[in-house]
Amino acid sequence: MIVVMKSTSSDTDIQHVITFLEKHGLSGHLSQGVERTIIGVLGAVGATGAPGSIGGINPAIGEALEGLPNVENVVRVSKPYKLASREFHPEDTVVEVPSACVEGGVVRIGGSDIVMMAGPCTVETEKQLMTTAAAVRKEGAVILRGGAFKPSTSPYGFRGLGEEGLKLLAKARDEFGMAIITEVMTPTDVAMVCEYADILQIGTRNMQNYMLLDEVGRTRKPVVLKRGMSSTFEEWLLAAEYVLSQGNRNVILCERGIRTFEKTTRNTMDISAIPLIKRLSHLPIISDPSQGTGRRDLVGPMSLASIAAGTDGLLIEVHPNPDEALKDGAQSVTIEQFHDLMPQVHAVAAAIGRKLVTR
Amino acid sequence: MIVVMKSTSSDTDIQHVITFLEKHGLSGHLSQGVERTIIGVLGAVGATGAPGSIGGINPAIGEALEGLPNVENVVRVSKPYKLASREFHPEDTVVEVPSACVEGGVVRIGGSDIVMMAGPCTVETEKQLMTTAAAVRKEGAVILRGGAFKPSTSPYGFRGLGEEGLKLLAKARDEFGMAIITEVMTPTDVAMVCEYADILQIGTRNMQNYMLLDEVGRTRKPVVLKRGMSSTFEEWLLAAEYVLSQGNRNVILCERGIRTFEKTTRNTMDISAIPLIKRLSHLPIISDPSQGTGRRDLVGPMSLASIAAGTDGLLIEVHPNPDEALKDGAQSVTIEQFHDLMPQVHAVAAAIGRKLVTR
Amino acid sequence: MIVVMKSTSSDTDIQHVITFLEKHGLSGHLSQGVERTIIGVLGAVGATGAPGSIGGINPAIGEALEGLPNVENVVRVSKPYKLASREFHPEDTVVEVPSACVEGGVVRIGGSDIVMMAGPCTVETEKQLMTTAAAVRKEGAVILRGGAFKPSTSPYGFRGLGEEGLKLLAKARDEFGMAIITEVMTPTDVAMVCEYADILQIGTRNMQNYMLLDEVGRTRKPVVLKRGMSSTFEEWLLAAEYVLSQGNRNVILCERGIRTFEKTTRNTMDISAIPLIKRLSHLPIISDPSQGTGRRDLVGPMSLASIAAGTDGLLIEVHPNPDEALKDGAQSVTIEQFHDLMPQVHAVAAAIGRKLVTR
Amino acid sequence: MIVVMKSTSSDTDIQHVITFLEKHGLSGHLSQGVERTIIGVLGAVGATGAPGSIGGINPAIGEALEGLPNVENVVRVSKPYKLASREFHPEDTVVEVPSACVEGGVVRIGGSDIVMMAGPCTVETEKQLMTTAAAVRKEGAVILRGGAFKPSTSPYGFRGLGEEGLKLLAKARDEFGMAIITEVMTPTDVAMVCEYADILQIGTRNMQNYMLLDEVGRTRKPVVLKRGMSSTFEEWLLAAEYVLSQGNRNVILCERGIRTFEKTTRNTMDISAIPLIKRLSHLPIISDPSQGTGRRDLVGPMSLASIAAGTDGLLIEVHPNPDEALKDGAQSVTIEQFHDLMPQVHAVAAAIGRKLVTR
Repeated sequence: MIVVMKSTSSDTDIQHVITFLEKHGLSGHLSQGVERTIIGVLGAVGATGAPGSIGGINPAIGEALEGLPNVENVVRVSKPYKLASREFHPEDTVVEVPSACVEGGVVRIGGSDIVMMAGPCTVETEKQLMTTAAAVRKEGAVILRGGAFKPSTSPYGFRGLGEEGLKLLAKARDEFGMAIITEVMTPTDVAMVCEYADILQIGTRNMQNYMLLDEVGRTRKPVVLKRGMSSTFEEWLLAAEYVLSQGNRNVILCERGIRTFEKTTRNTMDISAIPLIKRLSHLPIISDPSQGTGRRDLVGPMSLASIAAGTDGLLIEVHPNPDEALKDGAQSVTIEQFHDLMPQVHAVAAAIGRKLVTR
Repeated sequence: MIVVMKSTSSDTDIQHVITFLEKHGLSGHLSQGVERTIIGVLGAVGATGAPGSIGGINPAIGEALEGLPNVENVVRVSKPYKLASREFHPEDTVVEVPSACVEGGVVRIGGSDIVMMAGPCTVETEKQLMTTAAAVRKEGAVILRGGAFKPSTSPYGFRGLGEEGLKLLAKARDEFGMAIITEVMTPTDVAMVCEYADILQIGTRNMQNYMLLDEVGRTRKPVVLKRGMSSTFEEWLLAAEYVLSQGNRNVILCERGIRTFEKTTRNTMDISAIPLIKRLSHLPIISDPSQGTGRRDLVGPMSLASIAAGTDGLLIEVHPNPDEALKDGAQSVTIEQFHDLMPQVHAVAAAIGRKLVTR
Repeated sequence: MIVVMKSTSSDTDIQHVITFLEKHGLSGHLSQGVERTIIGVLGAVGATGAPGSIGGINPAIGEALEGLPNVENVVRVSKPYKLASREFHPEDTVVEVPSACVEGGVVRIGGSDIVMMAGPCTVETEKQLMTTAAAVRKEGAVILRGGAFKPSTSPYGFRGLGEEGLKLLAKARDEFGMAIITEVMTPTDVAMVCEYADILQIGTRNMQNYMLLDEVGRTRKPVVLKRGMSSTFEEWLLAAEYVLSQGNRNVILCERGIRTFEKTTRNTMDISAIPLIKRLSHLPIISDPSQGTGRRDLVGPMSLASIAAGTDGLLIEVHPNPDEALKDGAQSVTIEQFHDLMPQVHAVAAAIGRKLVTR
Repeated sequence: MIVVMKSTSSDTDIQHVITFLEKHGLSGHLSQGVERTIIGVLGAVGATGAPGSIGGINPAIGEALEGLPNVENVVRVSKPYKLASREFHPEDTVVEVPSACVEGGVVRIGGSDIVMMAGPCTVETEKQLMTTAAAVRKEGAVILRGGAFKPSTSPYGFRGLGEEGLKLLAKARDEFGMAIITEVMTPTDVAMVCEYADILQIGTRNMQNYMLLDEVGRTRKPVVLKRGMSSTFEEWLLAAEYVLSQGNRNVILCERGIRTFEKTTRNTMDISAIPLIKRLSHLPIISDPSQGTGRRDLVGPMSLASIAAGTDGLLIEVHPNPDEALKDGAQSVTIEQFHDLMPQVHAVAAAIGRKLVTR
């Protein structure tokens, strides 16, 4: 941490900072520049004694420093996340998911192969789910997505079938051998969802629902953590750190678009998140072009762009009859569109030296 | 709802829309313009039969319509919230909070008077809380704020004293007669927090934590609902609608700053939210200039601006020694600053014909 | 245009709108819904008599309507741009640029082939320019980029060599046969820049510099119009409409990243702009991954993602020794990196059935 | 400037930075922390020899440093603006504008008094202008606003009366003794606009039109510099620095709202800009609640909020018949509304110990 003093700061102001640091078990290293003084903050990791002081200097120290007289600003030089950081864990994390439909019975996310996850936005009926599952499995998807608990902006919107939806998903797994990914929205549902799901999904609105992150962190299930719709990379990786710090190392990040001024699309997909997260973190990252754009006609191009940029997987909404979908109809592709997209996905993957795992 | 067709749409496309509407119990009213056709969607409220169809046409219908061939876009003409809407409830809602320190024992939020809520960001120690409570009560605050459960961006940050903090708050209430406002972060804590608190606070990160909204909606405690840091007014009012639709009509909105490109302040306080929410909704709205700016030196001017713009209350972080605050030190004002601010607050309130309730 | 009345509007309010429309040569078509009335605005194109009334109903009419009593909002159903719109011009526009290094002497932008434009951010010295030009031509670039007039956020930053830089660019064209693209910043420079350049570039800060748009619109030079850093697609296409409406149909759009909350990258590249602009407009669109990310290490992945998403060209900053670049060093790739990237670019282009024009 | 190295950086990487700094006439001061090394950059102001090196270390140096191997990031510790900075110019700047209607013939902006500027958005007809000018002067406005050159998002919108409009403004000045503020959009118009106007206005879209800033900087006319609609405070003050560095010290900043996700208002007015700019800079700051909200019904509350927060002036759009305004009708208040607002403006000003200069 570096404390930058105002050019008008006095010796008393500087001493104030030094004293503050010492009170918290840290020390200050002065650098006098032409215009101003900067103070490097030194201290053994965890020296502060404050709650949660592992992971570098307590962030609360920085906030308090900002409030001291004639402090211009405080610059952190260490990243606030450790377990999620590539610096402290240089090798790629590969998350293993049991999936009967592939050789060896395990899908690996974050390795050399790309994984296709597809299925309806929301589980509506057995017929809808089974039809979609059969179709996407046939095309090469190895993980089935489907929402049983749905966040709805309006209290009057459809909120999912709940456990009944989970049971249908389990039935589809039995029939098609695909692993199941589904969303969990609140801590008390985690145990139940774990009974049915192979991957827990944390939605964009819950990226900073810390008690939910703690709870999924206490399981050992793979967790897909979607990016908050206006979050920075640092906040996203700190959310991952919540899960990791509880002992669950099976975290997969998912770029699903951010909110921007543009209203032609529901969200603006940040494809640069894919290569950048790969540099900042060792965790796998997948892409959700359905939520990421909110438009069926953009799912194809954004799937291909994601693969070209290095994504480890795609999460695509497919519906047998999107016109009748109860939720997110506009962003689900048809089975036919999905069928047409797959050869292009294979071709772009091959162009960058990767392949899709399909069996 | 209005469906705008592309200028290249055919009769078949238009018929497709009409058929879709009829399948969902609605009907379409065609208007042929020079360049394009628009279709007004008509139907009895709740006609769709879909889950959650009260509150106008099911929003899922609109999303599905957007996906139909040669539909340019779909325009909603009704607001998706009803219970929160000024249109359907023209009179101001006044929320009553029991508070022993005022005449009659009840503070009214949303009426002609302005209410000052103040106290530490986080409850740290009994001494810190009691000192602050005594000081802010003396200056005229009638509600005491203090966090026992704290959302922290980092898993290594301080997360509050929990129930121990709630007990200290209750002790302060006994001593100073102020009502207590404190945050609740997860559904399973609601019952416990209700035992101690007079007002439940929902934080910015939980504005769309729907199960938490449901749960506080099932109580009858006043709820301060902070604006999500990137949310629109509509999303905010829909979050209020969650609480209202569960039967709890005691909802108070709180402007606490939104995320913008500016990094000199932690958030950008949207003062225009105050008069605008008053037009869109009948619910009271208060202002949090501490979170709203993240800077102690801006709390004063933004408090005054909030009052000039019509706020119903202020929520201000005060700390007896902000340099030593474990959390959010940079944005807490000192007791002395709070003391200096109060006469200005009274003066600006008087200038617009209102007054602070102080006893 | 559709006028949506408040549910509380009276017959007088509705009549007020009708009268207003008639005063402006338009008429209103009433639709009475359960909750509110909507008024469709009908009128011959150009009927208003107001300046600039071609292109549909004068936008000022809509703004004035919004201010009438008990008008809830005004919804435009026609796009405000016509010449730039795919609806009114379904065929792709192909912009031709004279370039001696390719067969036939003409590069086509917006057709089946993808075009590589590369070169230094800023022209610094003859040696730097010639070295870079030789290198990028050898790798297959057919258009040379290089800034002679540079927008600098600080008045103390380097603002380019001016006409001296243009002369160096012309010299490079003579030597390597590549067409030249360079920025023009103010109307009075347009004539001079036209003497040297084959393509005029309008930078992001000038996307709404209307007098500059008018001026380049009066030439017939191809114009690369960069997206404003916070502009919507509609504003961008309206800026293109300025150029087109002056008679210059040779407009090429360029996605160069938008401003978001993320500070790890200089900008967030909006790859979805590529397929979406293709749907909204017939104009070619190219990508600038150097400005779009501000990071050398992301130029490669974002180039490939752009191609996978359907871009018509890439605009890449290359510097023989980026450590010494006077401007934008952090985002320029080295000649070696550019060399390594090209085979991947060819491979991804082939995967989606396109190829780069290189000679 | 501080260079933060990655924790994985080697001695060679650090030496690379040191060598780079020395090549540019600077030196590096190493600080070895537990996890990483940071390098303080030292150097005489202007030591770099690069163009524009006054004003601290050339920003291009920082950009180039960011691109060196294993550099984590580069932190500036000096503000990039000097002439606009409060640190280097602690006393408030007061800009004087000749105005016959006040005692002494000069209005002072940035002193203890608050200044009201009002008038139509756009000059449309002599009658409209004279009626409005008479009305606002009667209410106490001392400066008349009115656009002769209007930026229009669409090429088909109304772009103003041009010099004819300027002549009408001059006529109004002769009649009512008010100073005139009007927008200038391009460098070649500056001389002509200076002939008529007392204050030049630079609009939001031109905040980074550097050649225009240079040109108004070469005059000595007061300049109102509106904030760019997505600009940071630093960018805004750097734009002011352009004008100041050409020798024109009469710069007045104007907060006019920023773009946010909210679409209910045209812009989101950032009231916190007022007290914050006062801390960062010595320049006066005024508020434009008309552009800042885009809604007539918010002009009143946001005017009062601006005053409570410390604004030096208000810029308000008034129209004798806003329903018929050719431009921005929805945001212009009526003469009657303006009349009703003034007593409140006086009251809030008095509450914070200031007053409006009205004669």
